[in-house]
Amino acid sequence: MALSSQSYKGTRDFYPQDMAIRRWMFDRMRQVIQRYGYLEYDGPLLEPFDLFAAKTGEEIVNQQLYWLIDRGGRKLAIRPEMTPTLARMVAARFHELAKPIRWFSIPNLWRYERPQRGRLREHWQLNVDVLGGDPLLADAEILTLAVDLMKTFGGEQNAIIKVNNRKLIDHFFGNVLGLSADAALKIVKVLDAKAKIGEEAYKAVLDGIGISADQKDKMEKFFSSSFADVSRAFKCVGTDELNALFDFLAQSGVKGESVVFDPTVMRGMDYYTGTVFEMYDTSPDNRRAIFGGGRYDNLLAIFGNYKLSGVGFGLGDVTMQNFLETHGLLPKIEPSIDVFIALPAAKYRLAAEQVACLSRNEGLSVITPLGVDGFSQQLKLAVKHGAKFVVLFGEAEFAEGKAIIKDLLTATQEVCVISGLHLRLKELAVAKAKGG
Amino acid sequence: MALSSQSYKGTRDFYPQDMAIRRWMFDRMRQVIQRYGYLEYDGPLLEPFDLFAAKTGEEIVNQQLYWLIDRGGRKLAIRPEMTPTLARMVAARFHELAKPIRWFSIPNLWRYERPQRGRLREHWQLNVDVLGGDPLLADAEILTLAVDLMKTFGGEQNAIIKVNNRKLIDHFFGNVLGLSADAALKIVKVLDAKAKIGEEAYKAVLDGIGISADQKDKMEKFFSSSFADVSRAFKCVGTDELNALFDFLAQSGVKGESVVFDPTVMRGMDYYTGTVFEMYDTSPDNRRAIFGGGRYDNLLAIFGNYKLSGVGFGLGDVTMQNFLETHGLLPKIEPSIDVFIALPAAKYRLAAEQVACLSRNEGLSVITPLGVDGFSQQLKLAVKHGAKFVVLFGEAEFAEGKAIIKDLLTATQEVCVISGLHLRLKELAVAKAKGG
Repeated sequence: MALSSQSYKGTRDFYPQDMAIRRWMFDRMRQVIQRYGYLEYDGPLLEPFDLFAAKTGEEIVNQQLYWLIDRGGRKLAIRPEMTPTLARMVAARFHELAKPIRWFSIPNLWRYERPQRGRLREHWQLNVDVLGGDPLLADAEILTLAVDLMKTFGGEQNAIIKVNNRKLIDHFFGNVLGLSADAALKIVKVLDAKAKIGEEAYKAVLDGIGISADQKDKMEKFFSSSFADVSRAFKCVGTDELNALFDFLAQSGVKGESVVFDPTVMRGMDYYTGTVFEMYDTSPDNRRAIFGGGRYDNLLAIFGNYKLSGVGFGLGDVTMQNFLETHGLLPKIEPSIDVFIALPAAKYRLAAEQVACLSRNEGLSVITPLGVDGFSQQLKLAVKHGAKFVVLFGEAEFAEGKAIIKDLLTATQEVCVISGLHLRLKELAVAKAKGG
Repeated sequence: MALSSQSYKGTRDFYPQDMAIRRWMFDRMRQVIQRYGYLEYDGPLLEPFDLFAAKTGEEIVNQQLYWLIDRGGRKLAIRPEMTPTLARMVAARFHELAKPIRWFSIPNLWRYERPQRGRLREHWQLNVDVLGGDPLLADAEILTLAVDLMKTFGGEQNAIIKVNNRKLIDHFFGNVLGLSADAALKIVKVLDAKAKIGEEAYKAVLDGIGISADQKDKMEKFFSSSFADVSRAFKCVGTDELNALFDFLAQSGVKGESVVFDPTVMRGMDYYTGTVFEMYDTSPDNRRAIFGGGRYDNLLAIFGNYKLSGVGFGLGDVTMQNFLETHGLLPKIEPSIDVFIALPAAKYRLAAEQVACLSRNEGLSVITPLGVDGFSQQLKLAVKHGAKFVVLFGEAEFAEGKAIIKDLLTATQEVCVISGLHLRLKELAVAKAKGG
């Protein structure tokens, strides 16, 4: 029986057109990141299961992890996120690495989820992190970089970064509401998932925890207040940190409308301890965060007595591409080559191959059709490949050791000796590059 | 208990220095490949288990595959090679895709093996394939491209491509030796693995199959003969194809010493049907093939009634890096940035951040230390980051709205107004780039 040619549910086949978009997106991001001096790293796709069990969060570990036992009996998981790998790598060379550590990576990640808009089972995610340094300066740098990423795509007007602080959340749920850490954690998780699970399920969880009417009132007030009101009513280390961050960002030139306070931003990961943030599309078409991140003070402690606070975010290709498409910010990326060498008869194939070889040595991109076909068929193929020039072998010219060069854009043509074709093609390509 | 900070056995953590090497290698390869007009594709990391069970070969499927059952009960495998995914993707859009199809990809692949020199459990592999076109022209193009890849690293003198043809192998084992297809396949597999399993185990398998003394003699003769002798003694479609290929390559300019006949080249995959080849390092330090590949006529048939022959190869990063290191062809890749902004006191941090922002907008790469520290400490950090210029804030200059720019290479310095620092730094960086 024939196998299905479909890819596994929730994954994508990247045909050249799709791959060109992915590469274009991440190459642009890489350019921005390099202006900040961040260095690229990578880690293994499979990690010990325990690495994620430690701090990644219950939902992901119990419901979404792809895991297996290897032939040596080791329990491994396909990484659902990159931060634990980053922490492991930093811990492994803790004393050698100069701080602050500024690293980025673009891994593919896996989560078992119901595939839906903005969320697939496999996605690629830009991860940007700083470990060490003054937390205020590092948080500000990461957010500035995030805004710069949106700017490079021309999307800064269509996106907003919502910022909160875990210390403020802890203060509010613990000190103000008087809830246990466990109950607070449950509420934080359900709040984080509220948009996903709906109002009904959200209320059911609150009732299950046994929240009083007074506590509900306070929660409502907290979640609907401006930052100024929250800062007054619930002043704590968290609000102090937020104030310092917003002040610093405003002074260093990041506009206030792109970074705002939002007390509902929680982030699902267990390891966040300070600033947390998410970037949202202003269009209702895309309800999922484009990216999210935060500060983690104690993540390295799972590997031993290492103390180094970090801050970072992850930006997925699926949500980013949705964002760019929604706002018309994704250019049409067409393949292009310099030269297409048409092959109207078998006797020209050696000459064609030699011209191709010599032209490639000149740095030109060259395609031959790898077979004999009619001229109009091959011209179609040349156009499909985005060729700038076509080399044509004709009976009369070939007898004189010559061939025709046709410029597909201007539809002009010239005759050239075959032994000099590669040099002439190079000249023409350089001239065209300068002209356009 | 603390978790281990070591990566899973047989995998690598790519610290920035390692990642820079991987990126440098594949970026250079990508440049060469683009001269041939190949387009990049990618597919999911997990594929249905059956995709590999069909044609990948018994050893890999039964002993080396990482597989799991997902939460929906589907049996999936982490790809051990890319060709089945390529075939699946081509089958899925068979009628839309213009032929010949020239694609490449650089996936990470997994095999459960004993980690050793040249072979790890996770590696990255360049895959280059042509589907369609005249088989002779396509085989020649793929081999020419492979030689070009080695040339771009300056390694063409240290590597040799060994070529064989499955039709010749089938002819020899079937028609000449009179062995069943099953026995022939066993011998082909054990011959392919001979270097790995050793002479003893190899002989034991031959004895197990029940090879006669006469058959052994013929095998010895076959495997020690020159191509001219094999062509005469065992003339068949396979030798005809090889002759045509060697002739065409010689005429189109690929040197004979870099592509040679070798009857022992088999390739383990079940799907090869024509030309097969492997590239070897001439140094005895590296005994594993740097890359290997071949022609597959019937791979698409596992998805239905699709007829399209392909040829391609896979080149792994582990063997390639060993090759380059052995021959001193791997440059030392150091990180570098344009500007490092030193921060000797907290009062300068806002100015530092503003200069950083403005300079990044000019396209410069800029790092600040994210914290206050002594000048000599920060200068060390600047050198470590490979900075070209350092910006220094000093008490006296700052009072006049100025700061110092120090050129780390020439050890010269100048004073500049803070509001114009980014423009002056840009000028200096451009001048340095031109000068160097």
